[in-house]
Amino acid sequence: MTDGAKEEKLKRISESIRAFPDFPTKGILFRDICPILKDPKSLAAVIDLFEEYVRQNHQDVGMIVGLDARGFLFGPLLAQRLGIGFALVRKRGKLPGPTVSVAYDLEYGKAEAEIQEDAVAPGQKVVLIDDLLATGGTLNAACELMKKQQAHVLGCLVVVEMKDLNGADKLKPHTVFSLVQY
Amino acid sequence: MTDGAKEEKLKRISESIRAFPDFPTKGILFRDICPILKDPKSLAAVIDLFEEYVRQNHQDVGMIVGLDARGFLFGPLLAQRLGIGFALVRKRGKLPGPTVSVAYDLEYGKAEAEIQEDAVAPGQKVVLIDDLLATGGTLNAACELMKKQQAHVLGCLVVVEMKDLNGADKLKPHTVFSLVQY
Repeated sequence: MTDGAKEEKLKRISESIRAFPDFPTKGILFRDICPILKDPKSLAAVIDLFEEYVRQNHQDVGMIVGLDARGFLFGPLLAQRLGIGFALVRKRGKLPGPTVSVAYDLEYGKAEAEIQEDAVAPGQKVVLIDDLLATGGTLNAACELMKKQQAHVLGCLVVVEMKDLNGADKLKPHTVFSLVQY
Repeated sequence: MTDGAKEEKLKRISESIRAFPDFPTKGILFRDICPILKDPKSLAAVIDLFEEYVRQNHQDVGMIVGLDARGFLFGPLLAQRLGIGFALVRKRGKLPGPTVSVAYDLEYGKAEAEIQEDAVAPGQKVVLIDDLLATGGTLNAACELMKKQQAHVLGCLVVVEMKDLNGADKLKPHTVFSLVQY
């Protein structure tokens, strides 16, 4: 992809993200990615850029692992482009059969991220995907789930990164690739 | 697509669905579609069949509308194949900005389905998508949301239909197209 093509795609994606103040709670500026989904060219641009990045940096990826629920919007599209499978990380209690879970802290209280025991194979190389990186709590829990399952995390992909919240630091040594930063 | 090709795709999809008894509660046989996502050929088969059906039956569709959370796994893939947008129906409180919501009954208690006010345009023709049709409560609420927004529902798509629970009756006059029936 030429630099010009890349810039054009990033511009279209940025223009499809809108901000809503005080959502879900007062003081939070919520970045809404719904308009990306509404515009087929914007959604294709997201997947084009993720695909190029993964092909250049994580050639040996064997599985895309996406986070409930907005990671589900992008992950299967990327997995299909790469010709590989997609695995679901969900909130605890949503997945049937034998599962593994990891607790993590939210601003108020705790949550648990869960995956089916056979979702990823030991030694498998995976790339994690979500819509947005804030403090990194959920993505970090997903990384821990991968470690428990002896899968190897090659990196994390997000459409939007909230730089001020330092989520990328929490995820180290894993790398984060984001398309739009605030 | 030839009948042979269609049968082969349906076979691959059926073989990728597994059953777990007593999940999420005793007496329920849960149909798990996660292995479809894990197998890229099975996921491609789902989208191939949905795409052909929509092109043959709902040529003038303008938007795919998917239900939180497993409708998100299939909807954006179908929308991209058709070159149209995707809109999200979520549980209440998850979507920022002006929204419209509809309450519906669950086995115990009530829930609310919500959509952003500008997700679909008045007069727009939409196709709804989810992973599974059971009693039809959520899909029916999504149809009501479309009515509130003056969008026109052309039909509903699901991967799995639980025939015994008569969800398709509840959705009438809207039609349901399912790939696998139990």
